[in-house]
Amino acid sequence: MRINIQRLSAFLRDVNQFGALPGGGVSRPSLSDEDRKARDWFASRVTALGLELHVDEMGNMFGVWRGRTNKMIGTGSHLDTVPTGGLYDGALGVMAGLEVLSSLKEKKYQPNHTLVLANFTNEEGTRFTPDMMGSLGYANPKLIPELHKSLAHDDGRSVGEELKRIGYLGSMPCGSLAFDGFVELHIEQGPILEKANQDIGVVEAVQSIHWKRITIEGRSAHAGTTPVEYRRDSFYAMSCLSAHARELCIKENGLMITIGTMQLVPNVINVVPKKVIATLDLRHPDDGVAKKALEEIHAFTNQHPSFSGLHTSWEDLVDINAIKFDQGVVAAIEKSCVSLGLTSRRMISGAGHDAQLLSSKYPSAMIFIPSKNGVSHAIDEFSSEDQIEKGANVLLQTLLELDSL
Amino acid sequence: MRINIQRLSAFLRDVNQFGALPGGGVSRPSLSDEDRKARDWFASRVTALGLELHVDEMGNMFGVWRGRTNKMIGTGSHLDTVPTGGLYDGALGVMAGLEVLSSLKEKKYQPNHTLVLANFTNEEGTRFTPDMMGSLGYANPKLIPELHKSLAHDDGRSVGEELKRIGYLGSMPCGSLAFDGFVELHIEQGPILEKANQDIGVVEAVQSIHWKRITIEGRSAHAGTTPVEYRRDSFYAMSCLSAHARELCIKENGLMITIGTMQLVPNVINVVPKKVIATLDLRHPDDGVAKKALEEIHAFTNQHPSFSGLHTSWEDLVDINAIKFDQGVVAAIEKSCVSLGLTSRRMISGAGHDAQLLSSKYPSAMIFIPSKNGVSHAIDEFSSEDQIEKGANVLLQTLLELDSL
Repeated sequence: MRINIQRLSAFLRDVNQFGALPGGGVSRPSLSDEDRKARDWFASRVTALGLELHVDEMGNMFGVWRGRTNKMIGTGSHLDTVPTGGLYDGALGVMAGLEVLSSLKEKKYQPNHTLVLANFTNEEGTRFTPDMMGSLGYANPKLIPELHKSLAHDDGRSVGEELKRIGYLGSMPCGSLAFDGFVELHIEQGPILEKANQDIGVVEAVQSIHWKRITIEGRSAHAGTTPVEYRRDSFYAMSCLSAHARELCIKENGLMITIGTMQLVPNVINVVPKKVIATLDLRHPDDGVAKKALEEIHAFTNQHPSFSGLHTSWEDLVDINAIKFDQGVVAAIEKSCVSLGLTSRRMISGAGHDAQLLSSKYPSAMIFIPSKNGVSHAIDEFSSEDQIEKGANVLLQTLLELDSL
Repeated sequence: MRINIQRLSAFLRDVNQFGALPGGGVSRPSLSDEDRKARDWFASRVTALGLELHVDEMGNMFGVWRGRTNKMIGTGSHLDTVPTGGLYDGALGVMAGLEVLSSLKEKKYQPNHTLVLANFTNEEGTRFTPDMMGSLGYANPKLIPELHKSLAHDDGRSVGEELKRIGYLGSMPCGSLAFDGFVELHIEQGPILEKANQDIGVVEAVQSIHWKRITIEGRSAHAGTTPVEYRRDSFYAMSCLSAHARELCIKENGLMITIGTMQLVPNVINVVPKKVIATLDLRHPDDGVAKKALEEIHAFTNQHPSFSGLHTSWEDLVDINAIKFDQGVVAAIEKSCVSLGLTSRRMISGAGHDAQLLSSKYPSAMIFIPSKNGVSHAIDEFSSEDQIEKGANVLLQTLLELDSL
């Protein structure tokens, strides 16, 4: 059995009308009007396919196809995007699930277990903090009252208000559908599969993610009158830290440190900056290695001469430990690749995903397809129709495999 | 003969009422209402002292004390300040000149040559570009029509309009008073005199100043999914450049490179920055050394591995060559220090000054006094009453020396 790539491509085109940007790409912030339109369209497709539609307290949407047993096999992803999003991050996993169930219905397949297709709320986190909010609440219902209070970064409205406003504050308690297996198809958002020329990534783990804010305080000084040996130059210290962070990454396989934001104070051309505020994004598949790298960075700021006479403070923004996916689901994905004659490699996800949050409670794993040039969260995010077809067929085979167990 | 420090301190207190900031310091942007009030007060003091008051086409103000010859000996500085200015940058040179002439009048001194006390327009350049505008126009009258068109960064009014509005568009042609010697007293704005424990800096040169804008363009990438070896990380390249610039400064005595402004694009915590826009302030007393350092920085961006696959572009913002002050005026200052029993060292000004612009046409030099912690352009800019008294006495002796030649 194979999926219908024409229909899948049409689903992607249809859903990406909502929030389409003039220059390509899409902006569909969570719980915005554009998100509501995409949800309404998705709901109509789910019911047209004869699935039960359920919406939970976090606005997560589920299309349920009852099988002969009460075991639950789930798939899905998210329809929200970042403000300059591409066409595939999130939408691919939901639309491929829709296509897989459409193909199964068409072929008059009779599921053994109950099959569930999910669209999770606010995976991206650009409108509301934290990201992966819907799957977080689904696996941790006690957090829901707190998550409902999260305020939008754009207009200050709360998640609870916005769910009500767009008509997606559901009544189904989170966790009602207890997955015995969950598989999410997603684009890789990185260059590894393309560089390795592999069809499929079998994702067996998600790396740890640490976000820190660092503030380095030195002293303002006149750029023309203060010899370098008398300066307490916060940006020079920051530069040395950045270079050191890169050395750590080169020495330690898999370690990624990114300095993505930066503010200089006073930010004047002829004044040595008295203060730098910057962020570090540090990731590694092994919690111990990540922790050691953070310690080395702290030690550097305490010991390196460029930090002499400066004051450094740290703020913890995000600390997510590494997780390992379920080996049973991983094996089912791998078996599907073999049966389809596709090349694959096991890999670790660098980004966070809904399946990662679900995995704390439900056996889960993920399927990755290549991303052109590794680009994501950008309008030129691209995976070819051929790559999408292969990924969706692996999703189909994996669901059939899990349904047979 | 000695100056009267009580009267000088009172002059400084009086003039710094105009634009006084609640927390200390002063904000007296050029040609603002506060500047007008300070000018009016200064004009009243000049006329009360029996000097002729002249205002030129650039709004520069002159108090003229006719001597027996037509030779002109000038002193002065500026009354405008940066928005968070201290009490001494500029005002000291004008008030010390006022005190010197007051003391000479009091002692019934009869000048040999004509003595001139100047307040130059817009030295700071924070409201109108370029800085040192009044002295620039004075020494280069053909630039005046262009300078009059310069627009305020705050309210968009032109220099010409504002001169007229505050009543200081004078009729005296720039250059009418042709100085045979000019000496400016100023705070050092750097730490050298304090660190060397010297009373007086005898400024014999002003270093070259180069301001460049650098734009480094790489590629955005997901912080969690893009191994460091696949990145084109514009900020990492910027960090390496910053560290290299500091190495150049350590190797080359007197070289100062400052990276004072920085903008990352997109400036998002989990995105490798695709673009960095930053500025370099590069100074050295020797034009050749400055030029070589700029070349080495260019070469670094062409050769260093961190710039591989990135595109770098440069914009020239300011290029001012080094100048040497007049050895006759320098010798007169040095002789005055000796006669007063003060310690002094010859030095090079790191900052730009009115005397620097005048020196292209008139024999000039400068007297520096120590700045506490080298701080300037900040409300905690400070020189002690003792240091101010010594500087003003050197100014008095130097003017007497020049008047005797």
